[in-house]
Amino acid sequence: MCALHGGDWAGYLAEFGAMPLDFSANTSPLGLPPGVRRAAEAALEAADRYPDPACRELRRALAAHHAVRPAQVLCGAGAADLIYRLALAVRPRRALLPAPTFAEYGRALALAGCAVERAALREGAGFVLQEDFLARIVPGVDLVFLCEPNNPTGLLTPRPLLRRILARCEECGAMLAVDECFHDFLAPEAQQSLIPLLADHPRLVVLRAFTKFYAMAGLRLGYALCGDEALAARMAECGPPWAVSSPAQAAGLAALRETDYARRLRRLIGEERPRLAAQLRALSCRVLPGQANYLLFFHPDEALVPKLRETGVLLRDCRNFVGLSPGWYRAAVRTRPENEIFLQKLKEVL
Amino acid sequence: MCALHGGDWAGYLAEFGAMPLDFSANTSPLGLPPGVRRAAEAALEAADRYPDPACRELRRALAAHHAVRPAQVLCGAGAADLIYRLALAVRPRRALLPAPTFAEYGRALALAGCAVERAALREGAGFVLQEDFLARIVPGVDLVFLCEPNNPTGLLTPRPLLRRILARCEECGAMLAVDECFHDFLAPEAQQSLIPLLADHPRLVVLRAFTKFYAMAGLRLGYALCGDEALAARMAECGPPWAVSSPAQAAGLAALRETDYARRLRRLIGEERPRLAAQLRALSCRVLPGQANYLLFFHPDEALVPKLRETGVLLRDCRNFVGLSPGWYRAAVRTRPENEIFLQKLKEVL
Repeated sequence: MCALHGGDWAGYLAEFGAMPLDFSANTSPLGLPPGVRRAAEAALEAADRYPDPACRELRRALAAHHAVRPAQVLCGAGAADLIYRLALAVRPRRALLPAPTFAEYGRALALAGCAVERAALREGAGFVLQEDFLARIVPGVDLVFLCEPNNPTGLLTPRPLLRRILARCEECGAMLAVDECFHDFLAPEAQQSLIPLLADHPRLVVLRAFTKFYAMAGLRLGYALCGDEALAARMAECGPPWAVSSPAQAAGLAALRETDYARRLRRLIGEERPRLAAQLRALSCRVLPGQANYLLFFHPDEALVPKLRETGVLLRDCRNFVGLSPGWYRAAVRTRPENEIFLQKLKEVL
Repeated sequence: MCALHGGDWAGYLAEFGAMPLDFSANTSPLGLPPGVRRAAEAALEAADRYPDPACRELRRALAAHHAVRPAQVLCGAGAADLIYRLALAVRPRRALLPAPTFAEYGRALALAGCAVERAALREGAGFVLQEDFLARIVPGVDLVFLCEPNNPTGLLTPRPLLRRILARCEECGAMLAVDECFHDFLAPEAQQSLIPLLADHPRLVVLRAFTKFYAMAGLRLGYALCGDEALAARMAECGPPWAVSSPAQAAGLAALRETDYARRLRRLIGEERPRLAAQLRALSCRVLPGQANYLLFFHPDEALVPKLRETGVLLRDCRNFVGLSPGWYRAAVRTRPENEIFLQKLKEVL
């Protein structure tokens, strides 16, 4: 499990006795917003009580924030929790995923007994989903999972194609699940959430997380917005009732008010990502034009991860993504001084 | 979901605009131990990082505490999380439960596609499991779930019978899962954990929680101790990797050091439970001789819950437990002043 994802600072700590500089996890480099931290701290006051299993207050706030009905919202312990609940609630027999993409879709679907089909994102097509994906959505496919922007590529599917994929799913009776966990990191002009389509598309589900954007990975909070309220209710049944801890519920409510943090973070990522990409290219890396807070790149040295680890830097080795080979790496976009250290260490090991 | 369990203070709050006195949830009345709270607060410092998915430090501490191997320990977001993972990992076709018992076993097993058989605990037998339970464990039954002490009765299965149930499960190839979430509340002379048997019984699983005893319900933390390490590994795969938040991991580590809190709590429950039982009997309630931090009782007035709710007190209506009828209620054992208020309100509404 530890090798499957980035962010294994605990493994590093156990081995080296110190904390690494973590470029392998995709979370905000600005840390937990102080208002969010205060809210989580205050919630410890009442942590002797069960959390509200229905997350009433947080769901109301999220519904208002996204202009949907509270009954369309389901909160979970991170988006991963919702991926598993979705798979168990829909019980698809066949599901279609792009490759590469976030590993938890495939794991959750396998747990639900689903046959997973993968549509390769071709490097020749810039790892962007193409029209031929439509032909893979056929009757018998029950669920299509997309990650927008995709993890680990950071790339978006062109909006017209997304619309056609949704229409094609509806024709075939498939559900379309779109994971928008990294959507908040996009520049405003690049944002293209499908949330406004939920009202007219009962077979559409959008997943969101607080984990990455608000640096709340340790607190575990995500949510699903369902076109169909009945699906949200079914997903609630597909796991333990008290999924979201009290500190996480309080933190989520507070995070929705962190508009200044959100602006600062988007500005930072918008400035640092092209700089980091340019400097990686200067080091002979082939860098994808990702639009989120991470960059996927290729370098023929297949041992960058252990080499950087020796210098105290964690980088995500992407060879275990279906569809990627050794030599592919994902680096988080962090603050300027951190990015400088990362690039310096990378230079040293190359 | 809200009607299925006690502890719905949030529903009361939404309706009445104030917090109720909650006798419907079974948690420690002494609140979060200060040391646990400090540890959870300190963990917020690093909440921007993913929690250690392997819970290395906590699992090591739990293994030392219970004299098992770390690989036998799996941590989860409350015992409920582990109940679902167990059901999904074992995938039993047939499972046997006593009735009444905690509702989540049946829900989790149903989600895993399992046929659930229930052995009625008869009031004539004092709601205690009898020898005839052995005859229900037959080849084809893949899993037996027991709650010791049972929720909602508070009663224990006699230890010799427990041993025979385990032996019978092994004969039949069934797994025995014993939920000991309320075990810590037992008086020392009543304690009879099956944990020492794990070493020689690979088909035994014991579930534990911090939730109830350390008043950490809002933080979500439980664990499974597996006779068979491979089962712990399979359960880890049957759900999202980051199940336990960073504050919960830190809180669990701190809770293991709260020996004074544990002593005080057991003394309080030991003193207050017989008092509360006697006073309920004086109010014409039929009270079971439960040994945990709650009491199951019968009163012919089937509307006690809504009546008490009007006075600001939550009581658990047990009619939705399979095997119990209207008129059965479960009350938590809390501090002397709280118990007095509860009894006073109960007198008023009777």
